[in-house]
Amino acid sequence: MAQVKTLDNLFHDTLKDIYYAERHILKALPKMAKAADSKDLKAAFEKHKKETEKQIERLQAVFEHIGKKPQGKKCEAIEGILKEGEESIMADFASSEALDAGLIAAAQAVEHYEIARYGTLQRWATMLGHEDAVKLLKTTLDEESKTDSDLTKLADSYANEEAMAD
Amino acid sequence: MAQVKTLDNLFHDTLKDIYYAERHILKALPKMAKAADSKDLKAAFEKHKKETEKQIERLQAVFEHIGKKPQGKKCEAIEGILKEGEESIMADFASSEALDAGLIAAAQAVEHYEIARYGTLQRWATMLGHEDAVKLLKTTLDEESKTDSDLTKLADSYANEEAMAD
Repeated sequence: MAQVKTLDNLFHDTLKDIYYAERHILKALPKMAKAADSKDLKAAFEKHKKETEKQIERLQAVFEHIGKKPQGKKCEAIEGILKEGEESIMADFASSEALDAGLIAAAQAVEHYEIARYGTLQRWATMLGHEDAVKLLKTTLDEESKTDSDLTKLADSYANEEAMAD
Repeated sequence: MAQVKTLDNLFHDTLKDIYYAERHILKALPKMAKAADSKDLKAAFEKHKKETEKQIERLQAVFEHIGKKPQGKKCEAIEGILKEGEESIMADFASSEALDAGLIAAAQAVEHYEIARYGTLQRWATMLGHEDAVKLLKTTLDEESKTDSDLTKLADSYANEEAMAD
C-alpha cells in the first residue's frame, strides 16, 4: 500500500522541481546574454550564470543533508516561463530597441518563480528541522531577490527608455 | 515591410499574456478551493477568485485606455505553473496532511508570476505615459502582493504544522 505523503515528500518533490529548474536556467542564461543588446545586461546575465552554478551546488548540498541523491523532476512551470522568453522575446523582438526591456521582463519572471520556490522551501526546511538546509536556501533566496531588484534598476536605468527610442 | 517593434508592442503583448493568465487562474481557483482541506484556505481561494474577477475588469480597462480590444495570448508560463499545481499537488497529495501546504505553495508560484508581470507592466505604463493604466496596474500589483503575504501567514498559522502531523 502506498504510504500517505507528508511534508518530507513535499519538500523533496519541490527540491527536485527547483533543481530541474535551475539547471534549465543555467542553459538559458548564455542564450539570454548572447541575445542582449547592451553590455550591462550581458554582464548581468553572465554574473547570474555564475551565481546559478553556486545555487545548484547549494541544492546538491541540501539533497545531501536530507540523505537523498540530487535529482531533477520535470518542471513545467520553468519550461513555460523560459519558452516565453525565448519564443516571444528573443524571436519577436530580435531587432527591436525594446529587446533588452523584454529580456529583463522575462528574466524577472524567472526570478519570481525562484523566489516563490525558495521561500516555500526555506519555510518547510525550518518546520522539518533541517537547519543547514535553511541557511543554504536562505542564501539563494537572498541572491534571487537581489538579482530581481538589480534587474529593475537596470530596466529603469536604460532599457525602458531605450525601448522608446524608436 | 514589418515595422520594428517598440515598447508599445511589448506592453500590448505582455498585457495579452497576463489577460490570458488571469482568465486561466479564474478557472483554476474554484478547483483549488474545492481541493483545499481547511475552511480558511478554501475561503482564501474564494476571496482571491472575487479579486481576480476585478483584476480582469481592470485589465479590460487598460486595453481600453490604449485603444485596443481585450484579447488574450497563450501564456505557456501560467499553463506550466497551474499544471504543476493540479498534477503534482492535487493528484499526488490528495489524501495527505501536506495537501494544503502544497496548494499554498502552488498558489504562491502563481502570485509571484503575476507580481513579476504587473511590476513590469506598471513600469512600462509609466514610461509610455499611460497614467490611468499605471493606477489600475498598481492596484492589482498591491493586491497580488497582499495575497502572497496572506498565503504565507496561512501557511505559517497551520498548513505547514498540519503537514507534519503524520
